[in-house]
Amino acid sequence: MDFLTLPKRSSKPRETGITHVLDKGMGVEQIRDLFAICGEYVDIVKLGWGTGYVTPNLKEKIAVYHELGIPVCFGGTLLEVALRQNKLDEYIRAVKEFGMEYIEVSDGTIAMAEADKLALLKRLTKEFAKVLSEVGSKDEQIVIAPFKWVDSIKRELDAGAWKVITEGRESGTVGVYQPGGEVKEGLIDEIVSAVSPERLLIEAPIKKQQTWFVKKFGANVNLGNIPPEEVISVETLRLGVRGDTLLTFH
Amino acid sequence: MDFLTLPKRSSKPRETGITHVLDKGMGVEQIRDLFAICGEYVDIVKLGWGTGYVTPNLKEKIAVYHELGIPVCFGGTLLEVALRQNKLDEYIRAVKEFGMEYIEVSDGTIAMAEADKLALLKRLTKEFAKVLSEVGSKDEQIVIAPFKWVDSIKRELDAGAWKVITEGRESGTVGVYQPGGEVKEGLIDEIVSAVSPERLLIEAPIKKQQTWFVKKFGANVNLGNIPPEEVISVETLRLGVRGDTLLTFH
Amino acid sequence: MDFLTLPKRSSKPRETGITHVLDKGMGVEQIRDLFAICGEYVDIVKLGWGTGYVTPNLKEKIAVYHELGIPVCFGGTLLEVALRQNKLDEYIRAVKEFGMEYIEVSDGTIAMAEADKLALLKRLTKEFAKVLSEVGSKDEQIVIAPFKWVDSIKRELDAGAWKVITEGRESGTVGVYQPGGEVKEGLIDEIVSAVSPERLLIEAPIKKQQTWFVKKFGANVNLGNIPPEEVISVETLRLGVRGDTLLTFH
Repeated sequence: MDFLTLPKRSSKPRETGITHVLDKGMGVEQIRDLFAICGEYVDIVKLGWGTGYVTPNLKEKIAVYHELGIPVCFGGTLLEVALRQNKLDEYIRAVKEFGMEYIEVSDGTIAMAEADKLALLKRLTKEFAKVLSEVGSKDEQIVIAPFKWVDSIKRELDAGAWKVITEGRESGTVGVYQPGGEVKEGLIDEIVSAVSPERLLIEAPIKKQQTWFVKKFGANVNLGNIPPEEVISVETLRLGVRGDTLLTFH
Repeated sequence: MDFLTLPKRSSKPRETGITHVLDKGMGVEQIRDLFAICGEYVDIVKLGWGTGYVTPNLKEKIAVYHELGIPVCFGGTLLEVALRQNKLDEYIRAVKEFGMEYIEVSDGTIAMAEADKLALLKRLTKEFAKVLSEVGSKDEQIVIAPFKWVDSIKRELDAGAWKVITEGRESGTVGVYQPGGEVKEGLIDEIVSAVSPERLLIEAPIKKQQTWFVKKFGANVNLGNIPPEEVISVETLRLGVRGDTLLTFH
Repeated sequence: MDFLTLPKRSSKPRETGITHVLDKGMGVEQIRDLFAICGEYVDIVKLGWGTGYVTPNLKEKIAVYHELGIPVCFGGTLLEVALRQNKLDEYIRAVKEFGMEYIEVSDGTIAMAEADKLALLKRLTKEFAKVLSEVGSKDEQIVIAPFKWVDSIKRELDAGAWKVITEGRESGTVGVYQPGGEVKEGLIDEIVSAVSPERLLIEAPIKKQQTWFVKKFGANVNLGNIPPEEVISVETLRLGVRGDTLLTFH
């Protein structure tokens, strides 16, 4: 079918319009089957938090993603555990051995001095094709002032991060969201007054969040932590073929 | 196992007791696998909203459904986009080319004059085996008076709709539901005082909604927008082998 | 990867650290695929409530679980329906014919005199390898006093139950939970002042519940009604490689 006029979408390898998917324990056949349907819309898969560490057939799983041409990386939390145990080098070695070209740095749970985070980002940009840096806390009780978000994002981009991920978690209830999942609109406005949204990868696991960002920044906004079974739905929101964005685009 | 006495269920092809399933992007192996378990309970599958339009292997997917003997149709939103772009004929041609015998007409997002909707229904009844018509808005801020629901449903049945779908969306928070998912009981009472529930296909994606309707109208109420992984659960509610309806039937 | 120091986990066959999974209608290929990833973390699968009764390929499905070395049982609700229809012997015969070694006794929906429940437990311990007994109501309006929970749990263990399941349902909103899903902390404290948590199998379908119990009782708490797709996530919570429990263990 090609009888409709739809918003123009970016194509792979994408710099904008990225869909970043959260895999929290899919089977390999499920990956093959689902991504036969939606793989062209998927730019990166994250093996959420430490799930990769407890996945017995991890090597096979990563091989399937690579076969499908989809880059895969570990969640930042796994790096945080490694840091906490002074095992950073071991962690980086493992990431390389699995053939991953993307790596994520976060401090959503542990405390990390800003200078240390920036130094780590700089180091990793020399060793990996793309470094993702995450800003924001996983604790819904911790509220970070907007100017601090902006400062962190700018410095982490300057340090070489490819994109900065804005925290939302799997739940969409922390970071740039209220505990009920509503977007902190003032915070987003403040961030994008200083940083192009193209440099952000916005975790937006819930439909009302995806809708808000597509309406605000257009079809080619970068969205992260998309559940695998929602990839097709997100694509319809981007193109205005779901009720929520139909009248925005058509 | 057949030692229990259970409510008598209708059998295929069903006029009542219909389970209408929402597919928002399943893979073909998942379809084969899941419907080996629950296919006999599934009467129609809807490829939700415009998901069909962005599914690369759509032809194969539809073929799998047809192989399983399960009719499949597009969501009404896709027709709404086509109407909005003056591409109705192209849309209908595509639906036929995919071998679909069911078609859905809705105005949940776009405005459509009632005369136009009725004329479209009449036209489609000549071209398709079954025409589904949907009543209700996808916008939770739009509240339609009960008498208008009744009028629309009656006219659309008169115009040839096989069943009228009452809006609930994937979320179960609009149309015949409060934003918290509770059934608008007065609205349902008013509708069924004028129209037999057998002519309705009630979108009821959430368990408490399915339970309410099974208790109200019995095992063979027509339920729509059932998530694929809930088909077996819905069947247990219909038969009273889940706690929620056990004491209703046994 | 084995560079991290993690809490020591029990191994199969487990007496503690049990993960009990709720299957409400999975396909057999999905089972094979998912449990290739997480089967070593799964100790028992429950075919929720009466889903087993309406599963056409049940025999094949159970065979797949047995092939994977994972014990499988029916939900207690199916036994409740059988009791209600005076078909207990037929039910037990069916359970045996399917080769199940685990059986669950509950009275979450029907009323059962305590003496009858205890007598049934005693009878079943002679016929099955493991008898699970469930305490708590599925009705969120029924609140049972903590001392009654304790009495029931102790008597049912004395009658031979291997573990006592504390009710939570698929939703995590009844039994030991508030309607919003929060743990009834005082109730749990009262229960474990009289019964070792090792003898409990705590239904905890929601992440915040799993987190609470892992923090309270450690990596090897027994957790039940885990959705299949959350098994890996639960394992990460147990090991402190997810943000929610990272600082508890590392």
